[in-house]
Amino acid sequence: MNVAKALLAIMALTSIAACTTLPGGSNSAAGPLVIQEQGSFAVGGKVVGAPGTYDNNHPTPAGQTFHGDHLYAFYQVPQNPRPLPIVMLHGAYQSARSWETTPDGREGFQTVFLRRGFPVYLVDQPRRGRAGNSTVAATIEPTPLDQLFFDQFRIGKWPDYFDNVQFDQRPETLDQFFRSVTPNTGPYDSNAISDAMAALFDKTGPGILFSHSQAGGPGWLTAIKSQNVKGIVALEPGSGFIFPEGELPHEMPSAAGTLTPEAVPLADFEKLTRIPIVIYYGDNFPAEPTTERGQDNWRVRLAMARLWIDAVNKHGGDAQLVHLPEIGIRGNTHFLMSDLNNVQVADLVSKFLADKKLD
Amino acid sequence: MNVAKALLAIMALTSIAACTTLPGGSNSAAGPLVIQEQGSFAVGGKVVGAPGTYDNNHPTPAGQTFHGDHLYAFYQVPQNPRPLPIVMLHGAYQSARSWETTPDGREGFQTVFLRRGFPVYLVDQPRRGRAGNSTVAATIEPTPLDQLFFDQFRIGKWPDYFDNVQFDQRPETLDQFFRSVTPNTGPYDSNAISDAMAALFDKTGPGILFSHSQAGGPGWLTAIKSQNVKGIVALEPGSGFIFPEGELPHEMPSAAGTLTPEAVPLADFEKLTRIPIVIYYGDNFPAEPTTERGQDNWRVRLAMARLWIDAVNKHGGDAQLVHLPEIGIRGNTHFLMSDLNNVQVADLVSKFLADKKLD
Repeated sequence: MNVAKALLAIMALTSIAACTTLPGGSNSAAGPLVIQEQGSFAVGGKVVGAPGTYDNNHPTPAGQTFHGDHLYAFYQVPQNPRPLPIVMLHGAYQSARSWETTPDGREGFQTVFLRRGFPVYLVDQPRRGRAGNSTVAATIEPTPLDQLFFDQFRIGKWPDYFDNVQFDQRPETLDQFFRSVTPNTGPYDSNAISDAMAALFDKTGPGILFSHSQAGGPGWLTAIKSQNVKGIVALEPGSGFIFPEGELPHEMPSAAGTLTPEAVPLADFEKLTRIPIVIYYGDNFPAEPTTERGQDNWRVRLAMARLWIDAVNKHGGDAQLVHLPEIGIRGNTHFLMSDLNNVQVADLVSKFLADKKLD
Repeated sequence: MNVAKALLAIMALTSIAACTTLPGGSNSAAGPLVIQEQGSFAVGGKVVGAPGTYDNNHPTPAGQTFHGDHLYAFYQVPQNPRPLPIVMLHGAYQSARSWETTPDGREGFQTVFLRRGFPVYLVDQPRRGRAGNSTVAATIEPTPLDQLFFDQFRIGKWPDYFDNVQFDQRPETLDQFFRSVTPNTGPYDSNAISDAMAALFDKTGPGILFSHSQAGGPGWLTAIKSQNVKGIVALEPGSGFIFPEGELPHEMPSAAGTLTPEAVPLADFEKLTRIPIVIYYGDNFPAEPTTERGQDNWRVRLAMARLWIDAVNKHGGDAQLVHLPEIGIRGNTHFLMSDLNNVQVADLVSKFLADKKLD
């Protein structure tokens, strides 16, 4: 696509977004935000320590402690808030930044849903971002992965954008996108994450969980660990597909590796049947196996997610999967919440929340 | 101090804070915040890459790039904003979290100054927090340092709090304080930080810099690199005391190590004489050398800062140092902006900004 065409397409999409009527509040571009309260805190985590006696004036590790594996949350409560807050959990290589301003400078889901009346909690998960204190050591290398991200997050096939992609093609947008990446500061641990998330829901009370990508798995675990999770909106879950023991589907090979389902006790799995769940996936998934690694990665995730939805519903749950192209919404990347049509995606989410009486 | 006495002291301090008239806006406890705009972005930094050709379907580092060494900023603009925004830069082991909610759950300088009408930018510096992508590798160990922090940040002499300390003594407050710690994800580099900060001031336009602790040094460098820094409020600068070449004071030994001044070209130093600068230090500094490591660390920093102020003013500058106990304000820790009397400290800062016509 050339630049002029790209600009026209962007203008058309922007215009659609601006004309969308938001069911739950004011338009995202309109007027000031009225915030009743905002702030941040840490929650969950551990305290570890070194044996010995602390010597104030000749300190060594002896006798000292270390607080780690907590999560960090920044929250905002709008005036006249809806009863259930939304907790947003980022994916791999990301932080709460995922939900803030989009790479092209528009409002992300943080502010969009705040405008729609929800208290919004943005999380940096344990061992990421501002919750960097990990009880387990790690070495961080500056590994060049930008081009892999471009492919795997379905922006296009590097260096070409997909023709219909909902991603602004100015170089500065891609620069902002790449700079939203931030590393793990300790080994990834879905139990450490879901433990801290459950502690967060203890603090917030009943609420809704939005998960993105790698957060899918810890999201299900959080709902198993906390009865305060009253609904889940999972954007492109990418790992941690859990099934009851004895009911695991076959693993699924792809050009990007093999996706393996994980077993949990049936009693835990059944906890996921108590709440409404929706999964959304975007565009440019291959229908058949392909050598295109970035896309094929998602073919198997979509297929596994369909089996997962079936398993939840077979056990009496209320889960649904929306593959956006099937309802005519085209061009979405892996980052549905910051794509050019993110207000359109937010509208779908708002409708789900209304249908399930979560708003 | 026993618990009952501590509670009475806290109630007295809280009451003083609540009765303080804020010169520049509404009381921090009163009413909703009206936000005209909020969001986040990355700025500054580098792109590094591996030689070779990227193979989309068999990716290795070859031919791929890595974006790192940028800073991350979250900003909020209140309705009817004052002309100059405030940019807040955290210290060692911290992130923008330093300026948000206090460890005991009150509003920090982020929201206090937003209520006073300033646009506020909170920074995670390069290689910290959400700006974790470092172009240089690092290993992160879970080093137990809580007790050292308690001493060195002048909360008390572990495990005892200073009698007059402006720090809430509930265990959950100390837990929040320790969990505000987050590690470097690459080697500390004051030039990488000040380069990104100067790029931030290019973006914000003219503004005011608040620095804390280790940020003192990168703060001076930022003002040397960017003419958009129109004033500096430095809270307990702890390192990076720069003097003109040939005018360095002697290094200063202390129980916590030796503090060494750093040389910069005179032409650079003179750039600091163009703007008003204020430095604040809190309480429980020893007057004479002592073996108490945590406190003695600050004795030499205060002494060096006094020489620094003299040097700036000798070259025609407008710098001042306020040692809070000298004006009757007692008990402040190293974290002036989140101490129990942080509104009182904010009032001093507001008066400085008004005196210097920066508000």
